[in-house]
Amino acid sequence: MVNKKRILSGMRPTGKLHLGHLVGALSNWVKMQDSYQCFYMIADWHALMSEYENPEGMSGNSYEMVKDFVASGLDPERSTIFVQSQVPEHLELAMVFSCLTPLAWVERCPTYKEQLREIKGRELTTYGFLGYPVLQAADIAIYKANAVPVGVDQLPHLELTREIIRRFDSLYKKNIFPEPEPIMTKTPKLLGLDNRKMSKSYANFIALSDAPKDIEKKVDRMITDPQRIKLQDKGHPDICNVFSYFSTFEKPEVRANVRDWCEGAKIGCTECKKRLAKVIADYLAPLREKRDKISDSDAKDILTEGAKKARQAASQTMDEVRACINLVPLVQKR
Amino acid sequence: MVNKKRILSGMRPTGKLHLGHLVGALSNWVKMQDSYQCFYMIADWHALMSEYENPEGMSGNSYEMVKDFVASGLDPERSTIFVQSQVPEHLELAMVFSCLTPLAWVERCPTYKEQLREIKGRELTTYGFLGYPVLQAADIAIYKANAVPVGVDQLPHLELTREIIRRFDSLYKKNIFPEPEPIMTKTPKLLGLDNRKMSKSYANFIALSDAPKDIEKKVDRMITDPQRIKLQDKGHPDICNVFSYFSTFEKPEVRANVRDWCEGAKIGCTECKKRLAKVIADYLAPLREKRDKISDSDAKDILTEGAKKARQAASQTMDEVRACINLVPLVQKR
Repeated sequence: MVNKKRILSGMRPTGKLHLGHLVGALSNWVKMQDSYQCFYMIADWHALMSEYENPEGMSGNSYEMVKDFVASGLDPERSTIFVQSQVPEHLELAMVFSCLTPLAWVERCPTYKEQLREIKGRELTTYGFLGYPVLQAADIAIYKANAVPVGVDQLPHLELTREIIRRFDSLYKKNIFPEPEPIMTKTPKLLGLDNRKMSKSYANFIALSDAPKDIEKKVDRMITDPQRIKLQDKGHPDICNVFSYFSTFEKPEVRANVRDWCEGAKIGCTECKKRLAKVIADYLAPLREKRDKISDSDAKDILTEGAKKARQAASQTMDEVRACINLVPLVQKR
Repeated sequence: MVNKKRILSGMRPTGKLHLGHLVGALSNWVKMQDSYQCFYMIADWHALMSEYENPEGMSGNSYEMVKDFVASGLDPERSTIFVQSQVPEHLELAMVFSCLTPLAWVERCPTYKEQLREIKGRELTTYGFLGYPVLQAADIAIYKANAVPVGVDQLPHLELTREIIRRFDSLYKKNIFPEPEPIMTKTPKLLGLDNRKMSKSYANFIALSDAPKDIEKKVDRMITDPQRIKLQDKGHPDICNVFSYFSTFEKPEVRANVRDWCEGAKIGCTECKKRLAKVIADYLAPLREKRDKISDSDAKDILTEGAKKARQAASQTMDEVRACINLVPLVQKR
């Protein structure tokens, strides 16, 4: 067997997974299982950085996330699905990286400044939040990941990871970590119900676990072409979010039909949205069916197995790191 | 048995332990074993913050430190002697504390600003070094220490620990950690050979492991009363560092004799220093004898046992913390 390259990716357990996650990341993660050795992480320490004032949902969200992962097609036999805080080596490597990361590197990080500006109602000017990208670097390096699937907004973080790794190499004359490459996959852009980015905080999402009648209610709220007021007005599908959903979830021939209904004023927006709701519900049906069969105890078993596999890889890396920086070798097997 | 209160204290394995450590802290630690349950930590993560550019000595210094601890009278049966990096719960609690510690609290820390100013030739404006007091807070809280022996310069750090604990309490409505009290013990002030603070970085120290002939050489370099040039000049013992050493290591009646020799110009400074060297060598003799009997393997055993005891206490605390912030409970015993 050829040694597959490793990737790491993760999501924060801050709420339910939604269509945006599925289309933007998860479907891609599922595909990558064929060509990579995959580590998929539930990033609860990263979640705590923003949720520390109200962390009630953390463990519940983590279990639900396992179910969503597996229902979407992640295979716990092939991929390592684990919770970040179960693997202490993440924080150990983050500690080492912290010591050699100039403060200016994290202060300058564009996403940090952006999030401080954008996220309201939370106190994020904490010591921990400033270190977000250092922990991320450790998440990647502890598995010696060769590549990381990222969106454009995450590129500066990945570049910081690469800089930290280069600094480690140059300080200790050891080449333990590969410099991770970005994997930038084109994913369809799926806006939220209100045409903003689909996000838990905007409550404009369709959750993977939503029942068909919830989906219908939510889709009914979607904004269509504002110039199409009466049924006989001709619509402009290219500026209509509902049409873009059809494009994502339906075959080209169906898309052509929808365009025809709209531009020809053949059916109204309400009817069109009903049909979209059905399309989405059908799309999610097998996922929901699979999800319902995963018990809490199954989710726990998956995490137990995942933590074991993750720790095996992570502790090997950390042993090498300990030798580089001359820490006392572990006296006790953990 | 009455439940003894807990204390935590630690030293960084950045070099040999010297007389300043013994007189200023260790002798005090030895005494505290009678009235407290003591956790004595070799703070290697804290050392890494300043030594990351040259960490070669870290593990060697850690083993030597165990020997010095035990030779000075710390009893591994009664006290828990351990290396910080062997107990992953320190970093886990530090992560939690990081999330709830406003950046301004650490930026404002007076010792941080002082060290950036004072310590030359090292790049300390790193993300890790800024977090020094957050990790310190975790060190103390993870053992639920009721008290911490501190010098005046450490008081702001301890106050920060208390503030972080209060913030944790108020966020999670749980009272897990006692607010640690400072134990300020009067210890004689022992200057270095050159009248500056005794410090590894000034190379002005007498190590606990120095042989008598090294001690003689080093004491001979000490600065005495600069106004006493010839043997017949009368000396001023109260401004003489050599005399202050006699005060620390000798009984009052001997001190009176030394005063008499000096003020009466009865013996010269060279002779006086020879006698002091003998006093120090005799003072350290039993310690050195004990030290020579502790093998590397003994030191390792002590650290193994210490890590076990430390982790037992620390993991209990961390289980409670995990429940407070709703992390997935540990799926795997570590």
